[in-house]
Amino acid sequence: MAKKFSTRQEDYSQWYNDIVKHAELAENSSVRGSMVIKPYGYALWENMQKELDRMFKETGHENAYFPLFIPKSFFSKEASHVEGFAKECAVVTHYRLKNDENGAIVVDPDAKLEEELIVRPTSETIIWDTYKRWVQSYRDLPILINQWANVVRWEMRTRLFLRTAEFLWQEGHTAHATEREAIAEAQQMLEVYADFAENYMAIPVLKGTKSPNERFAGALDTYCIEAMMQDGKALQAGTSHFLGQNFAKAFDVKYLSKENTLEYVWATSWGVSTRLIGAIIMGHSDDNGLVLPPKLAPIQVVIVPIYRSEEQLDAISEKVKEITKQLRAKGIRVKYDDRDTQKPGFKFAEYEYKGVPVRFGIGPRDLENGTIEVARRDTFTKEMMPMEAIEDKIVLLLDEIQQNLYDRALAFREKNSRKVDTWEEFKVEIEKGGFLYAHWDGSSETEQKIKDETKATIRAIPLDAPYEEGKCIFTGNPSTKRVVFARAY
Amino acid sequence: MAKKFSTRQEDYSQWYNDIVKHAELAENSSVRGSMVIKPYGYALWENMQKELDRMFKETGHENAYFPLFIPKSFFSKEASHVEGFAKECAVVTHYRLKNDENGAIVVDPDAKLEEELIVRPTSETIIWDTYKRWVQSYRDLPILINQWANVVRWEMRTRLFLRTAEFLWQEGHTAHATEREAIAEAQQMLEVYADFAENYMAIPVLKGTKSPNERFAGALDTYCIEAMMQDGKALQAGTSHFLGQNFAKAFDVKYLSKENTLEYVWATSWGVSTRLIGAIIMGHSDDNGLVLPPKLAPIQVVIVPIYRSEEQLDAISEKVKEITKQLRAKGIRVKYDDRDTQKPGFKFAEYEYKGVPVRFGIGPRDLENGTIEVARRDTFTKEMMPMEAIEDKIVLLLDEIQQNLYDRALAFREKNSRKVDTWEEFKVEIEKGGFLYAHWDGSSETEQKIKDETKATIRAIPLDAPYEEGKCIFTGNPSTKRVVFARAY
Repeated sequence: MAKKFSTRQEDYSQWYNDIVKHAELAENSSVRGSMVIKPYGYALWENMQKELDRMFKETGHENAYFPLFIPKSFFSKEASHVEGFAKECAVVTHYRLKNDENGAIVVDPDAKLEEELIVRPTSETIIWDTYKRWVQSYRDLPILINQWANVVRWEMRTRLFLRTAEFLWQEGHTAHATEREAIAEAQQMLEVYADFAENYMAIPVLKGTKSPNERFAGALDTYCIEAMMQDGKALQAGTSHFLGQNFAKAFDVKYLSKENTLEYVWATSWGVSTRLIGAIIMGHSDDNGLVLPPKLAPIQVVIVPIYRSEEQLDAISEKVKEITKQLRAKGIRVKYDDRDTQKPGFKFAEYEYKGVPVRFGIGPRDLENGTIEVARRDTFTKEMMPMEAIEDKIVLLLDEIQQNLYDRALAFREKNSRKVDTWEEFKVEIEKGGFLYAHWDGSSETEQKIKDETKATIRAIPLDAPYEEGKCIFTGNPSTKRVVFARAY
Repeated sequence: MAKKFSTRQEDYSQWYNDIVKHAELAENSSVRGSMVIKPYGYALWENMQKELDRMFKETGHENAYFPLFIPKSFFSKEASHVEGFAKECAVVTHYRLKNDENGAIVVDPDAKLEEELIVRPTSETIIWDTYKRWVQSYRDLPILINQWANVVRWEMRTRLFLRTAEFLWQEGHTAHATEREAIAEAQQMLEVYADFAENYMAIPVLKGTKSPNERFAGALDTYCIEAMMQDGKALQAGTSHFLGQNFAKAFDVKYLSKENTLEYVWATSWGVSTRLIGAIIMGHSDDNGLVLPPKLAPIQVVIVPIYRSEEQLDAISEKVKEITKQLRAKGIRVKYDDRDTQKPGFKFAEYEYKGVPVRFGIGPRDLENGTIEVARRDTFTKEMMPMEAIEDKIVLLLDEIQQNLYDRALAFREKNSRKVDTWEEFKVEIEKGGFLYAHWDGSSETEQKIKDETKATIRAIPLDAPYEEGKCIFTGNPSTKRVVFARAY
């Protein structure tokens, strides 16, 4: 940890890459665009999965698993869907390798598939092909299913966690008897995502719908949560789609209603991915490295012994054994680092860089005094605390840190959100980053022109946008509410 | 559930398929050889994952994630590995689709990959390519990593759970400084698998090593657990491989030892898959459907109300609310089925077919008497139990059922295991199924000839095989211990 890493000011992009690499979250693999998620990064993902999975189950969903491969023809069935995804697919064409005459390993031309298979970029098509077999009557509805899976979208320019060819995610796919129920489901899952982002990731999010240009390929409406990163750019943190009857029609999924009529089924889909790890990094971290929200941190408290002799270490270790037991009984994830190969200062820097929320330092004098030096990662403050009932104080402290991270991120977002009323102003302000609340005439053409000129897109039409008469910043046409523009990841 | 399904006697294979389908565990998808794991089957897999994951972590392992795609050239690096896996690979050759002149979706010939990518059939190669970057010194060892993932092996003849093109599994990949440590790790994981099979799946397993013919492609030694199915065939339930330095040499992974010399790293890998669900089905189920071991059953207790009027249902439901609360407080997974669309008899048959270990029937008279009719799935016995402190009795009952399933499976295996000493006898006995303990001269050629003539293979060289002088059943050559022959899945 003696190395000096980039700061946000110097090079934001390099700062991000340094954290991903040196906090040991992930690294690039030998496969272009595919990452290796390292144990520390994966442990963070596991904690995220655990909470999300609980929330999905509490709202009545079950997990299932659908095939990785999708027949090419399935994509042709929903016209806008293929437009959105066909450009970036990994295509399986053969099912065997063989040795050529020189002994080299080559693709066996005799093992060509009759129909090519696409590695799923998302699973609507294969799932609706399945639901066709599951749905006959209204009694079979709703179907409330989630899948944890890997997906592949061929990307030319990749960034670890933010944009990779392969990534991990969950995708919910639900089927309903009525439009109303499907919309309620899509909205419910948006709330679940917002709850997760704010109360677990400690990142405030804007809830809204997408403009047609930014909608999911195949959706009638896309609900989204948008977060602001520390460079003022927006990051789409989760989406929940009301798919109407598009996929039911494409795959001919009908049900017999209570009234004995045949109706097409209504659909939603919703997902979040390992991209959220990118949001956590860019939402909270500082120039000293990663900062993790306590509720998701793989290690919440790290204990570093400070000693000169082996006797001292033994005495400290004995005490630490008690303390870790007490902490664990409260559900706190604690690590005791008694490696003899590194000095305390090195360890301090290492855990600081890895974003562990709380660090204990315990030396011989602390044993005498019954005290612990408790250091906070978020504020760098240190405090001597009595060992007695330390676990109760740490439970409170972790909550306090969690809240502080959220408050800090919220203050940053507020500071970098503003109303803009003229096109001249817009062009100036967008260069400074942040969210611009501006009037828009509702036309896709206008949105595209704004994007072409400024690289800004409509991140969300806020759900809670108040009625306000105004004029589109670009065309001057009438508008009734402000939407949020930003440059985005 | 009014339908009549196949019995084991009538058609064992159809009996298996019926259970997979009608107990709603899984089904075939539109993608040849790939299955859809349905919510009930996936919930079973989640329970298995949860216990295995805990066991892996308790033995010091961490989870991580490696790429789905493996560059073709990686397979050429370990000679026996490519031989074992190259014949059955899904090969990605292109990364884009496009519309042709007629508007049809076709593979874009301009988007051909320079080097083809293989969808992982197993991850040794991509992982050792990664470990090369992680290992410099003995301080970086051991690496103890597990991955939960999907893998693809192109299979011509598939069976749900037992042999599918895509399946879910975990694969552990560890790196060690010494041969001794790597062997100890491979053996430790065999013990973990045996513990899981016997104490969670309630299936007794034979622990042994594989003969060279049956070894993993690239391993020096393959440890395995073998289970006996109810048709007398063997099912390999888990393998743990000592890989020697094969992959370290193929990927040039060396470490600087304490003695300052450069040494190749020692490796293991170990895995179990959704195939284990097939083992559970064939290990315990009967002609009335699936039978699940309580420790893994998604639903351990189902409660069915028996009523004539809505008032009766309300009164029962109120009582059931209390009871489920008590059961859940003891960690019991309970479902209350108050569907008004089905009669109790239908529900009884449904949960029987789905293998729920314990069923409660509660009617108005039970409310008066404070009793519950408790039915066991494994023995079909029914018993009236007092409602009071029912949760404690059910905890004991679930344990009893778990033990009974194990005992039953063990008795079956013992009954169908026998020593065979002559080739004539062998040929007769192998037709009856079961495990044959026989002498073998240790030659791969002999094993192959036995397989060609009888379809039997050496399932395991038991770890605990006693020293016994004898003659190979096939060649008459000398042998010092018996090995286990069987036909296998």
